[in-house]
Amino acid sequence: MLWSSKEAFRIEYDTFGELKVPSDKYYGAQTVRSTMNFKIGGVSERMPVQVIRAFGILKRAAAEVNQDYGLDPKIAKAIVQAANEVAEGKLNDHFPLVVWQTGSGTQTNMNVNEVISNRAIEIMGGTLGSKKPVHPNDHVNKSQSSNDTFPTAMHIAAAQEVNEVLLPGLKKLQNALEGKSKEFSQIIKIGRTHTQDAVPLTLGQEFSGYVQQIKYGVARIESTMPRVYQLAAGGTAVGTGLNTRIGFAEKVAAKVAELTGLPFVTAPNKFEALAAHDALVELSGAMNTVACSLMKIANDIRFLGSGPRSGLGELILPENEPGSSIMPGKVNPTQCEAVTMVAAQVMGNHVAVTVGGSNGHFELNVFKPMMIKNVLNSARLLGDVCVSFTDNCVVGIQANTDRINKLMSESLMLVTALNPHIGYDKAAKIAKTAHKEGTTLKEAAIKLGFLTSDQFDQWVKPKDMLGPQ
Amino acid sequence: MLWSSKEAFRIEYDTFGELKVPSDKYYGAQTVRSTMNFKIGGVSERMPVQVIRAFGILKRAAAEVNQDYGLDPKIAKAIVQAANEVAEGKLNDHFPLVVWQTGSGTQTNMNVNEVISNRAIEIMGGTLGSKKPVHPNDHVNKSQSSNDTFPTAMHIAAAQEVNEVLLPGLKKLQNALEGKSKEFSQIIKIGRTHTQDAVPLTLGQEFSGYVQQIKYGVARIESTMPRVYQLAAGGTAVGTGLNTRIGFAEKVAAKVAELTGLPFVTAPNKFEALAAHDALVELSGAMNTVACSLMKIANDIRFLGSGPRSGLGELILPENEPGSSIMPGKVNPTQCEAVTMVAAQVMGNHVAVTVGGSNGHFELNVFKPMMIKNVLNSARLLGDVCVSFTDNCVVGIQANTDRINKLMSESLMLVTALNPHIGYDKAAKIAKTAHKEGTTLKEAAIKLGFLTSDQFDQWVKPKDMLGPQ
Amino acid sequence: MLWSSKEAFRIEYDTFGELKVPSDKYYGAQTVRSTMNFKIGGVSERMPVQVIRAFGILKRAAAEVNQDYGLDPKIAKAIVQAANEVAEGKLNDHFPLVVWQTGSGTQTNMNVNEVISNRAIEIMGGTLGSKKPVHPNDHVNKSQSSNDTFPTAMHIAAAQEVNEVLLPGLKKLQNALEGKSKEFSQIIKIGRTHTQDAVPLTLGQEFSGYVQQIKYGVARIESTMPRVYQLAAGGTAVGTGLNTRIGFAEKVAAKVAELTGLPFVTAPNKFEALAAHDALVELSGAMNTVACSLMKIANDIRFLGSGPRSGLGELILPENEPGSSIMPGKVNPTQCEAVTMVAAQVMGNHVAVTVGGSNGHFELNVFKPMMIKNVLNSARLLGDVCVSFTDNCVVGIQANTDRINKLMSESLMLVTALNPHIGYDKAAKIAKTAHKEGTTLKEAAIKLGFLTSDQFDQWVKPKDMLGPQ
Amino acid sequence: MLWSSKEAFRIEYDTFGELKVPSDKYYGAQTVRSTMNFKIGGVSERMPVQVIRAFGILKRAAAEVNQDYGLDPKIAKAIVQAANEVAEGKLNDHFPLVVWQTGSGTQTNMNVNEVISNRAIEIMGGTLGSKKPVHPNDHVNKSQSSNDTFPTAMHIAAAQEVNEVLLPGLKKLQNALEGKSKEFSQIIKIGRTHTQDAVPLTLGQEFSGYVQQIKYGVARIESTMPRVYQLAAGGTAVGTGLNTRIGFAEKVAAKVAELTGLPFVTAPNKFEALAAHDALVELSGAMNTVACSLMKIANDIRFLGSGPRSGLGELILPENEPGSSIMPGKVNPTQCEAVTMVAAQVMGNHVAVTVGGSNGHFELNVFKPMMIKNVLNSARLLGDVCVSFTDNCVVGIQANTDRINKLMSESLMLVTALNPHIGYDKAAKIAKTAHKEGTTLKEAAIKLGFLTSDQFDQWVKPKDMLGPQ
Repeated sequence: MLWSSKEAFRIEYDTFGELKVPSDKYYGAQTVRSTMNFKIGGVSERMPVQVIRAFGILKRAAAEVNQDYGLDPKIAKAIVQAANEVAEGKLNDHFPLVVWQTGSGTQTNMNVNEVISNRAIEIMGGTLGSKKPVHPNDHVNKSQSSNDTFPTAMHIAAAQEVNEVLLPGLKKLQNALEGKSKEFSQIIKIGRTHTQDAVPLTLGQEFSGYVQQIKYGVARIESTMPRVYQLAAGGTAVGTGLNTRIGFAEKVAAKVAELTGLPFVTAPNKFEALAAHDALVELSGAMNTVACSLMKIANDIRFLGSGPRSGLGELILPENEPGSSIMPGKVNPTQCEAVTMVAAQVMGNHVAVTVGGSNGHFELNVFKPMMIKNVLNSARLLGDVCVSFTDNCVVGIQANTDRINKLMSESLMLVTALNPHIGYDKAAKIAKTAHKEGTTLKEAAIKLGFLTSDQFDQWVKPKDMLGPQ
Repeated sequence: MLWSSKEAFRIEYDTFGELKVPSDKYYGAQTVRSTMNFKIGGVSERMPVQVIRAFGILKRAAAEVNQDYGLDPKIAKAIVQAANEVAEGKLNDHFPLVVWQTGSGTQTNMNVNEVISNRAIEIMGGTLGSKKPVHPNDHVNKSQSSNDTFPTAMHIAAAQEVNEVLLPGLKKLQNALEGKSKEFSQIIKIGRTHTQDAVPLTLGQEFSGYVQQIKYGVARIESTMPRVYQLAAGGTAVGTGLNTRIGFAEKVAAKVAELTGLPFVTAPNKFEALAAHDALVELSGAMNTVACSLMKIANDIRFLGSGPRSGLGELILPENEPGSSIMPGKVNPTQCEAVTMVAAQVMGNHVAVTVGGSNGHFELNVFKPMMIKNVLNSARLLGDVCVSFTDNCVVGIQANTDRINKLMSESLMLVTALNPHIGYDKAAKIAKTAHKEGTTLKEAAIKLGFLTSDQFDQWVKPKDMLGPQ
Repeated sequence: MLWSSKEAFRIEYDTFGELKVPSDKYYGAQTVRSTMNFKIGGVSERMPVQVIRAFGILKRAAAEVNQDYGLDPKIAKAIVQAANEVAEGKLNDHFPLVVWQTGSGTQTNMNVNEVISNRAIEIMGGTLGSKKPVHPNDHVNKSQSSNDTFPTAMHIAAAQEVNEVLLPGLKKLQNALEGKSKEFSQIIKIGRTHTQDAVPLTLGQEFSGYVQQIKYGVARIESTMPRVYQLAAGGTAVGTGLNTRIGFAEKVAAKVAELTGLPFVTAPNKFEALAAHDALVELSGAMNTVACSLMKIANDIRFLGSGPRSGLGELILPENEPGSSIMPGKVNPTQCEAVTMVAAQVMGNHVAVTVGGSNGHFELNVFKPMMIKNVLNSARLLGDVCVSFTDNCVVGIQANTDRINKLMSESLMLVTALNPHIGYDKAAKIAKTAHKEGTTLKEAAIKLGFLTSDQFDQWVKPKDMLGPQ
Repeated sequence: MLWSSKEAFRIEYDTFGELKVPSDKYYGAQTVRSTMNFKIGGVSERMPVQVIRAFGILKRAAAEVNQDYGLDPKIAKAIVQAANEVAEGKLNDHFPLVVWQTGSGTQTNMNVNEVISNRAIEIMGGTLGSKKPVHPNDHVNKSQSSNDTFPTAMHIAAAQEVNEVLLPGLKKLQNALEGKSKEFSQIIKIGRTHTQDAVPLTLGQEFSGYVQQIKYGVARIESTMPRVYQLAAGGTAVGTGLNTRIGFAEKVAAKVAELTGLPFVTAPNKFEALAAHDALVELSGAMNTVACSLMKIANDIRFLGSGPRSGLGELILPENEPGSSIMPGKVNPTQCEAVTMVAAQVMGNHVAVTVGGSNGHFELNVFKPMMIKNVLNSARLLGDVCVSFTDNCVVGIQANTDRINKLMSESLMLVTALNPHIGYDKAAKIAKTAHKEGTTLKEAAIKLGFLTSDQFDQWVKPKDMLGPQ
């Protein structure tokens, strides 16, 4: 690829007039116009690259199918090559548009069409901006509309992020937690309900709850995917498929499935696929549930690891970095903090997605770029933070068995083991007496004359309190 | 049932001391204490009756299983009878506690234990408040803890509300929309994207999008239910099942399944079932998606039905009541308004559920009453409003075909049909010319010399624009 | 007031036809019609009584002003008397409508008009349902529309709930926390950041942060009230004031101010006052901030009070009730749980209010009943829970000074006091060494040769670490 | 500034060991360690540059104050110069850390300390990474802790973004809307309530409602700022001010106020300032209200501008770009779409801020980076989109007076003008008759015999319906 100097511009036209396009960019007039009309948020608010790459896949698939329907094979071939480069992220610098543009994502679709058209023109030896021999609308966008391509790219991008980042991250965390649950299976500890001391369980059992949450998290995400795998392509402008060909929708979906290795199919109802994005609200809802799970787990782990001397101190968390700029020696549960911040963000993203999803009108929802930005952000952050949390915290968690045993042996809640033997009311009196007088349960029980020392030893065995009889 | 006079009280005791209990109430000391300690919100904030009734089912099931494990059959029988009355809603007046109590719902569990104990005592001829021969803890709560009974009741209540109210409401609406979609299948109308005129579709196609949204809504709800059908019972205090018996969990779940006709099973991991309520966050998330769908549909219908003379006017909505106290003759889309208000409420409820679900600590989530209140509220409101919307609006919707045809024939967007014939740029010029000069597309096309009158008639046929070729 | 038998009905008419109205009810045809058309949620979803009472105030004010403009004084007097009864809550049984009705609240406005009209007719000796001599529209609703009366009632109800419940509750809590802050001003304790041990502060300082949060909470609520004190009355149907009289708006606002003792004024722009409810979104936002404050404070208090033996144990919380149905002697921070559940609910309510507030169209927002329901619910729950939390928890909190001192003396974080003397890096080494070897800071410091025993005692004094030098 | 080659590294140390630092970067070991431990989200998730720049201001202020308290003036001078470069954004490339790090922002504080230290060392001729003569902790962070510097930077950044972007944007929009309100003051149009035809108002009145919303939006933002202008600096680690000097807090705040021209003061209670971020939740709540206002206004404008032929068509919106890639000639309300997408995002951001704000524990809230990211994002997007919306849409809006007049004259709702003359019930009959028979109101009125032609003309004058009498 040869660029002109940065100072140079070429003149391109849209239906509104002429525009200066930087010579070293493949995009064209409509992209430039969007950058002029939507100065909102700047570089950090650009359309996510995952959407751009998904568009590359879609445009390649469409070109191949269009060739079946008569598109000049030479043009198709050039489009496929250019689209591939987009799909591979090689042309990311040519997509300057922000999320805060038209709510249909039309401008990004045109940005893609322009870049692929110009790059294909270049491949075929033509002049950038000439729209010949590869026209952005007539060829690259053939049988398509922004209204069906953008939601198609949304679904492709979301499905890929879920499969490449989110699910692997969750599964990695699940595995690490399972490992810890097994490792800790023989460590009996005090339970806590209402943040107060309660009856014992094993540390392994406690971690098994976390495992279950993440395992179900995977199931929750997966149960939403059938609807994410449905593609709008073929619906064109309003869902009817006007200006496309019978079979185009099915063939494009099959081609996308082939290119991505994911089970995409054509959406059974294109009107729904353009006018609503319930499938993304649903996926976001599943991620919101995962965020709740992660918030719970990370909170538990940081509290159980609190200390070193004035906290609960049952877990020893890995020391990853100096914790405080003023308090030397302090090591903080920073990975848990990243997890809980991500969880809060995902909950917020979910509301943005919900508000956008609820406000579609007639044949088109016009909150598309905002919705996919938030969905991708949630998937990416959750997936990444699971990996970071696993590698930098979970796998290195150690049980502080001395501390755990000490708390266990002092606990008053073992009294519960006496319920079946002496009844609830007497058991309560023992616990209250021991609490008031600062004695052990055994001392209080004997003093109150409710049972003998032998009976206490026989009935109150933490090991026997870990399950039903 | 015989009551004492309203002025009379009996004295009952909890471990904290004596309390006056109204003679005409079955509840006991702990319930009274809760009413004293939690004066928050008043009558309208009481624990939902669905939870109380679910507790009735659970306590009956537990008594029957406890009998298998040795509970005196006479006591079991009395408990079963009393629990049945709770399940049937006959004793609703005996449950005065508000949602804003302890976050484990312990006080409601005790309220249930007290009511069933006293009613069972009454059945067996004993003295109310004597705890004999039926003790609220030792018998009614046998093999149970608030920590596993309350989440069990939450799941039973949620599952019943979903099956009895939410899903029937959604399916009814789906059917009605399907009926309309078929009825309107031949009516060609202008499409609208970005709220602006777009290419045509049939009114039936437009409604088919709504059908798909609701159909998927049903699927979304149903896909979350496997985890709602898992019951915590048998986990007792922290999930270990301490003080219960091997097999109790499975038998209780089977009994609840039998009593409700719903496929309840025991939760595979009780630690998760007590410490997290992800299953309800997930269900709430599915309802949140349904709320988005309903918001979209109701918004469309009220805009399409707007007028009578200055709106879009394509639909004629049923007139159900006088619409304005100052503007006579005005008929408003009031059912749509109820739908959209419910949708907003469900989105809000979902955030409350999410915040609660994310904030569990250690072995117990203590946002239980708040969470189930919101989940039940969402399910009930969505189900009810679907029925109301269907009966009072959807089934009576008529197409205003005169208006629809008029708008269709005037539309500029039919120009899209020319794209494949004369290319995008020329087509755009025709539309712009007609728009500027206030003429028809045909006049503009011919004037611009892009095609002949015959060609126009041949190429621009709305009927041919409803699908791919 | 004399009622007919419950079985009897009278026939009334609206513009749609005849309807059976229960003889013992003052409401009329339009109310009955609404109960038929909106079977959504049932009794627990009725329009909040605060709205009904606010309507009583408004209708009384309007009647008095209408008399100035020529309304027959006898009719005005009867309306005033009937409206007063509504304002005093005496006629609550006559308002059966649910929130989920028309989004303008028209049906509740008509319910009020009908009840006041019929009750006034009764007072004047007429026949219920005859609309003579007091017509619900022509007299009770004179110079008004649902579109301005309902938002007026919303603002009156919200302002009263804020002033009667929310602010007093917050101030009570603030005072109690201030008392504790002073009481605890000499108790030096370990600080905690990242849930980990940190440098010391006094328990009084810790509580002073809570005081500040609540104090600012009061300021936050108050700073939103100027816009809540603006009334829509006088805007009639679309904000123009059509069919009302010049001066009516100002006089009604003044009258409402007089009747309530609150500084109500007429809204400077009635179009905004009908079409948007930003003032309630704003108020809800302030309550959302208060919810965050309360969540933080209640979380802290329950964690600081955790134990009795395996938690942080620095605070002793009042024992208000038996905590567990299975674990005798367990006392739980139930008031904190009610607080945090309410906080979550308020956050959810806020999203519902936000969604409703953002979805107004043209001259009218039609999410009115839903919005005010949530605003009132938040105000009531927050106010009530502050009182409950104060009375049943905060005032009874005791410092567990033995425990606090023990944790303080063992802490490693006192090492921070050495930073200015020996630098950050050496201080860090001391803390790390003590941590690794399980020794005291002093032992580690001397062993490492960084300072002498005397220097340690001179430099590390918790009392000197409570402020700048 | 001279850089080494990109391949070269230098070795730096933190308390955990040695690390390779790129030679061309000013940051040091702790920054590098953070990049290794927090691979979450990548470049697009970096700490907002506004926070970095605010840190530059703070560090400069602290150095100047520290000089008053004895810091070597040469060191102070170098720090001031380096901090200035940070404040001016010249060193943005040296801040690679993501938001998803420790929740206190400690790593970013250290990143700043390292960059300023190394740049100051460079200025003074020392060796990068030597910590001499300018130590990142002992000098740059002197009298500070991450726990007070990060929230200080949060408030500085938020206040600047509000004053530089958000408020100017809102005021610009307010002015433009006011201009339109005046321009349209004589255009009488049909009002719409419930999306249905209602009584008339002027287009200027309609726009005056929008003006009021934005004007109040400005007031709402401003009313939250007093608490944002309070700075945590001086609180150091837990709020006590340990290791800082009496007067430091006040002097730093004064210096920051001087440097920014904004009325910053020291926070009266530092415990609150570290442990809670209610002030940012409050600010976010105000922005959430503004988002509701903007959603409403943008929705109205796109619906009023809908068409060109099948919509309401009362407004003509500027054509800024080609609207559809398939439908030529179509011009979409893209600026409105950007506005409504931003509004949805702000609502979501607000929930993230709320969740973070509610989850602080003890002496420190550890959702700081997430919270400020969302607050800044909301402020920036709202401010930018107001400018874009104003420039590219609002100022160019034209009234389609032909269309407005046509709709007005056909309207049935003018019947309301008859209420005071013939009563509500008769007026209703006229409207219903005209509606049913497709006639004008006048024809129906005369036919029904309720009034004469002259009376109709005299009573029904739209111009007389625009206000009270």
